[in-house]
Amino acid sequence: MTYCVGLCLKDGLVFLSDTRTNAGVDQIGTFRKMSLFQSSDRFFALMSAGNLAITQAIKEILLQGQLLNGKNLWNIKNAHDAAVVVGDAVKQVYERDHAALEKAGIDFNCNLIFGGQIKGERPRLFNIYSAGNFIEATPETCYFQIGESKYGKPILDRVLGFDTSLDLATKCALISMDSTLNSNISVGLPLDLLVYEKNSLKPNKLVTLDESNPYFQMIHQLWGEKLRSAFNSIAEPTWSTSTPGGSISAPAKKMGLVPINKPSLSMTKGKKSVKAIAPAKKKKAAVKAKA
Amino acid sequence: MTYCVGLCLKDGLVFLSDTRTNAGVDQIGTFRKMSLFQSSDRFFALMSAGNLAITQAIKEILLQGQLLNGKNLWNIKNAHDAAVVVGDAVKQVYERDHAALEKAGIDFNCNLIFGGQIKGERPRLFNIYSAGNFIEATPETCYFQIGESKYGKPILDRVLGFDTSLDLATKCALISMDSTLNSNISVGLPLDLLVYEKNSLKPNKLVTLDESNPYFQMIHQLWGEKLRSAFNSIAEPTWSTSTPGGSISAPAKKMGLVPINKPSLSMTKGKKSVKAIAPAKKKKAAVKAKA
Repeated sequence: MTYCVGLCLKDGLVFLSDTRTNAGVDQIGTFRKMSLFQSSDRFFALMSAGNLAITQAIKEILLQGQLLNGKNLWNIKNAHDAAVVVGDAVKQVYERDHAALEKAGIDFNCNLIFGGQIKGERPRLFNIYSAGNFIEATPETCYFQIGESKYGKPILDRVLGFDTSLDLATKCALISMDSTLNSNISVGLPLDLLVYEKNSLKPNKLVTLDESNPYFQMIHQLWGEKLRSAFNSIAEPTWSTSTPGGSISAPAKKMGLVPINKPSLSMTKGKKSVKAIAPAKKKKAAVKAKA
Repeated sequence: MTYCVGLCLKDGLVFLSDTRTNAGVDQIGTFRKMSLFQSSDRFFALMSAGNLAITQAIKEILLQGQLLNGKNLWNIKNAHDAAVVVGDAVKQVYERDHAALEKAGIDFNCNLIFGGQIKGERPRLFNIYSAGNFIEATPETCYFQIGESKYGKPILDRVLGFDTSLDLATKCALISMDSTLNSNISVGLPLDLLVYEKNSLKPNKLVTLDESNPYFQMIHQLWGEKLRSAFNSIAEPTWSTSTPGGSISAPAKKMGLVPINKPSLSMTKGKKSVKAIAPAKKKKAAVKAKA
């Protein structure tokens, strides 16, 4: 598995990827899922999830600068066309390999986050699918995740917005990654982190984080503590019906309680301890009510 | 989709289920996923995820008290045998429906959480799979989730233990549900919540929570706020290499930085702005080094 997250914000882009690969839990490897492309007037980052043979083949086409419909990452004029080039590389690998993969019963599985900036344009971020088609991040939905995305999504949804500063967003991405690392052993350290500052056209803030990184250590330890203390600071439920204000036992408006199923006499056939006392009790109660 | 979570703790059991069903996003329904079974010496709760036609059929067999290998929920002697009965009900529905489902290309998809107590035994909790086989919760792994489990798992992992009190555990389950509701629209209110107190043999704390429930409203609002303030209280990364103590830019021990790929001359063919100055610069540097 894999977890990568890419953010497209007012001040730039953040890319964070893990490095664990696996073919079953008994075959774990370490491979980079981030690739960087830079020339004087452009900077791009690519992160990949899915079948490693497929994603390495795509990366190789891009690194070699193969012309796809006459274009490669170095000669295109805008970031949208760069995403088209990456999509075309996906399609080329598909053409080469899909028949053999199908015979082996293997899906053509790849999912990419690609982003960067060409001089004169704003930074842009794309999510490129296994068919080579893609979508672009917008101020309303300013991040993409690929791979094991669910454990790390709640914190992104709670905290992140297009106007979030790069430092805050970096912290958020690292917490999102930490939650994922905690819950899925197929996502693992080290991490590759790139914080791309708008208009810099270079990877000024690029780092590889392992268990010895002091900042990631701090996040890992402190976030767990803070979560637990936030949890502890919320009141426990009160079941008393005499305090309906904050009570958990206030009835729902449209639904009653779950019905409680009790056995009829025939159901308990074969059970020694059954005593047919229920009807008798009811009768007694009825008598009382009348009295 | 569905989200249900069941906890097996020192002091009893907690069951929490949503009520949303869907066949595609354009067909949303409300169905209970919790069923309760009670007689004088036993209490059981069942929660279900998966194909609704399958899980309703299983529930019906149990409610009717059909004898499966001579047994039903009312005549068995211990909770393990009760789980066997539920598993046998799954197998019976499989026998009835799997051929037709296969023809329609539909998986036999069901996943159940079943638990409770028979007088004289401790409370027990089981996760019953679509083959009718099952596992039991232990003090080491004291909870089961079915349906959309990932969004709500981190808080369970951070906070919950076998010794956690029922009130704390209830709060934890509700926060886990709240995170899931926030991230997946195929999980929805109202919720059915049962807190079963050990040896009570009855559902004393049973409630259905909708958007008007004051305690759930409080959790929903406060947890988001607390998470954000926990997030804000952690320091942002510093990139300065002069403060290596808490700096994010400390190098990893086993891996260097992601390499930055630059174009060779041939790759930029067709691009106007390419200037072949790199070799000249290198030469100059070499001259300097010699000087």
